[in-house]
Amino acid sequence: MTKLDSVLTRIDNQLPQSLDRLFELLRIKSISTDPAFKKHCRQAAQWLADDLTTIGFDASVRDTQGHPMVVAHHQGPENSPHFLFYGHYDVQPVDPLNLWNQPPFEPVIKELEGGQKQIHARGSSDDKGQLMTFVEACRCWKQETGTLPCSLTILFEGEEESGSPSLLPFFEANGEELTCDLAMVCDTGMWDIKTPAISASLRGMVTEDFVIKAANRDLHSGHYGGAATNPVHILTKILAGLHDESGRVTLEGFYDDVEELPEEQRRQWEGLGFDAGKFLSEIGLSMPAGEANRSVLEKIWSRPTAEVNGIQGGYCGDGFKTVIAAQASAKVSFRLVSNMDPEKIHESFVKYLESHLPEDCSVEFLNYGGAAAIQLDHTLPQIKKAAEALEEEWGNPAAIVAMGGSVPIVGEFKRLLGMDSLMVGFGLDDDAIHSPNEKYELSSFHKGTRSWARILDALAE
Amino acid sequence: MTKLDSVLTRIDNQLPQSLDRLFELLRIKSISTDPAFKKHCRQAAQWLADDLTTIGFDASVRDTQGHPMVVAHHQGPENSPHFLFYGHYDVQPVDPLNLWNQPPFEPVIKELEGGQKQIHARGSSDDKGQLMTFVEACRCWKQETGTLPCSLTILFEGEEESGSPSLLPFFEANGEELTCDLAMVCDTGMWDIKTPAISASLRGMVTEDFVIKAANRDLHSGHYGGAATNPVHILTKILAGLHDESGRVTLEGFYDDVEELPEEQRRQWEGLGFDAGKFLSEIGLSMPAGEANRSVLEKIWSRPTAEVNGIQGGYCGDGFKTVIAAQASAKVSFRLVSNMDPEKIHESFVKYLESHLPEDCSVEFLNYGGAAAIQLDHTLPQIKKAAEALEEEWGNPAAIVAMGGSVPIVGEFKRLLGMDSLMVGFGLDDDAIHSPNEKYELSSFHKGTRSWARILDALAE
Repeated sequence: MTKLDSVLTRIDNQLPQSLDRLFELLRIKSISTDPAFKKHCRQAAQWLADDLTTIGFDASVRDTQGHPMVVAHHQGPENSPHFLFYGHYDVQPVDPLNLWNQPPFEPVIKELEGGQKQIHARGSSDDKGQLMTFVEACRCWKQETGTLPCSLTILFEGEEESGSPSLLPFFEANGEELTCDLAMVCDTGMWDIKTPAISASLRGMVTEDFVIKAANRDLHSGHYGGAATNPVHILTKILAGLHDESGRVTLEGFYDDVEELPEEQRRQWEGLGFDAGKFLSEIGLSMPAGEANRSVLEKIWSRPTAEVNGIQGGYCGDGFKTVIAAQASAKVSFRLVSNMDPEKIHESFVKYLESHLPEDCSVEFLNYGGAAAIQLDHTLPQIKKAAEALEEEWGNPAAIVAMGGSVPIVGEFKRLLGMDSLMVGFGLDDDAIHSPNEKYELSSFHKGTRSWARILDALAE
Repeated sequence: MTKLDSVLTRIDNQLPQSLDRLFELLRIKSISTDPAFKKHCRQAAQWLADDLTTIGFDASVRDTQGHPMVVAHHQGPENSPHFLFYGHYDVQPVDPLNLWNQPPFEPVIKELEGGQKQIHARGSSDDKGQLMTFVEACRCWKQETGTLPCSLTILFEGEEESGSPSLLPFFEANGEELTCDLAMVCDTGMWDIKTPAISASLRGMVTEDFVIKAANRDLHSGHYGGAATNPVHILTKILAGLHDESGRVTLEGFYDDVEELPEEQRRQWEGLGFDAGKFLSEIGLSMPAGEANRSVLEKIWSRPTAEVNGIQGGYCGDGFKTVIAAQASAKVSFRLVSNMDPEKIHESFVKYLESHLPEDCSVEFLNYGGAAAIQLDHTLPQIKKAAEALEEEWGNPAAIVAMGGSVPIVGEFKRLLGMDSLMVGFGLDDDAIHSPNEKYELSSFHKGTRSWARILDALAE
């Protein structure tokens, strides 16, 4: 029996205790975007530092201007490689709460017909369940062998769901401590429930948050309706004009730096056997939206987008209020691909918006955020080794995929610390992350833990 | 000294006590549209019934399916006319609370430079301040003369700001008790701070409240953006399409029953000396919105409108949530003029909306409400007498005006009880009703009370 075999057996035997620990973490309401949950975020950070300490890491909670970081170090055998593992302990808000089948911070395991088991809770998939697969793999390595197969630094962030404002200053202050041979990022998904995946490209993102203002106060729509500028009307016209009839984004220069998919990559993606109809029907839709004459996979992996993520103006409560609001606001995000420059897209959006404002309206831009798209080097030897380890665990070759979402930290690892990232995670498309009833497959948690044990073994060689 | 003179002197002398009573009523948080304030609505009704009883009315709180009515009767001299006075004790919600300069339910009197005094509180103008001008006029008549100059029935409603769902059933059950020679409705305004007004026409209204639904859950905009239908996009396109480039409403048949303003009326309105620039600059605007080539007075008095009163979709809290919402909702109101049929406009809106929905979206219509426009008979002798009484009090002739707002009860008085309505009130355009920092001029309250004393005297003859 190899060391790895005994570690894997230990992972199997300790699954109940691993779940107990995960549930403890899931019960902490670490919603980073809402200031009301500040102390819960710190509580989650402290819980993780304490847990890593029990494994033998030199772990600490590190203050930032926002929510704290957790940093932990463990020395491996001499001359072994040194990896940085990254995850985040913060979670998305839970509204609308009434759509949850059970309280979001009271984790449960649900068994479906046929025996499939799922962990239900906010953060089960994004990202507490994912990061604990790595922690549990480390625990079993340590318990079984007395050490780890390689040197590890672990970084857990608490602001991933709220734009990571403290990340760059933290990197700048602690770059040397965090720089390793390779980063491992677990905030990604599998191809399907039986097929692991390594993500080789990510879309970037620009987020815009703005308010359009008209009259100096809310107005009675009877007294002023028909003569006073209604900022909701202005906002709806502006947002409706963001896409043309063919679904393309109308911002000036939006597609200037977008490259067409290379023929080789298109063929590889076609080989994945993606079922667009199933993808849409699982979310209750039958027709793809967006750009005409593009496949669904292209749309979500290699095409840029504009999406309104939030809009609000006037009276939205029960009943009716005949008001012309003084202001209306929206949150809009753009997904970026290829070489699109976040700053350029932001400027183009500001220009578009300002040029569509009537004389009596003003616009106030609030938090703007941006991150470029990421394209990894396919030829990295670590990617090949990780792919082999994943295939051993799952019995299916790992799919090399793109991701429609953004993991801005991967760009910062490269830019600030000079590190490439291995993106491996065990989430599934139907995990409902960012939505009510978020879940994580029990198989993702269990075999995910086993996968990390194998990857650490493979990459240590 | 006539009876009227001594009543007017008493009104002057008792102003401090009148204000004390008004403040008591203003402190009651009778927000009818929000179920959380149900008991406050009943409290306001009881307060009014108790106060009317002290004057000598036979007053009672009458249950309905919603908030209660207050009905009070007082017999006048034999063969005197019998009037029904209508007001409402419910008020608008107070959000956004942070824009109020003081708590909305803690009334204060503010003195401006130059000595002008204002009563500040939610409901000070709409409608508690207005209805108390009538109650105080009755009190002083009764105290001074031992009776009232005519027979009076008073009806105070508690659902005017939430669509008056109980009004029609109440009229149907109590029609005989409520039918008088003429109704008096105080929910209207003055021409300016020195010029009283009688309202001769009112716009009608249709209110629409609906939700557009797309995916079966909220989606992550990274995983689905560019391929999944975003209901906020659909909603903004639909709302942006409600007006064409010239500001006209695009619903089919919308203008079919709209009459052009008669030349005579246009001339009378021009004689009022309305200052459109001042009207707009007071609310921080410089350019009229809405239909091209119409005067501002036409736009707010005699032209139909479509206004979005509320819109909501996706995440609107602090921070950012990269979500594609499962649904988006809006509240839209149409102001009606001439012979526009609320039912027809509703049907046209439903048709417009359904014809613009993509295949994967559905729409759910919630509460729909409708009331036709009102045009009063100018030649009623009571209108002439009231105008003379108002001129005596204010020293300026009463302006005969239209109202952009809707007072649906005036239509129901005519339709169900066969009564015309005398619409006299002392609100001002800048009272900020339905907005933060609602106020009522102290002169409106004081001289308004005196005006009602004069009108009752004039109409009793």
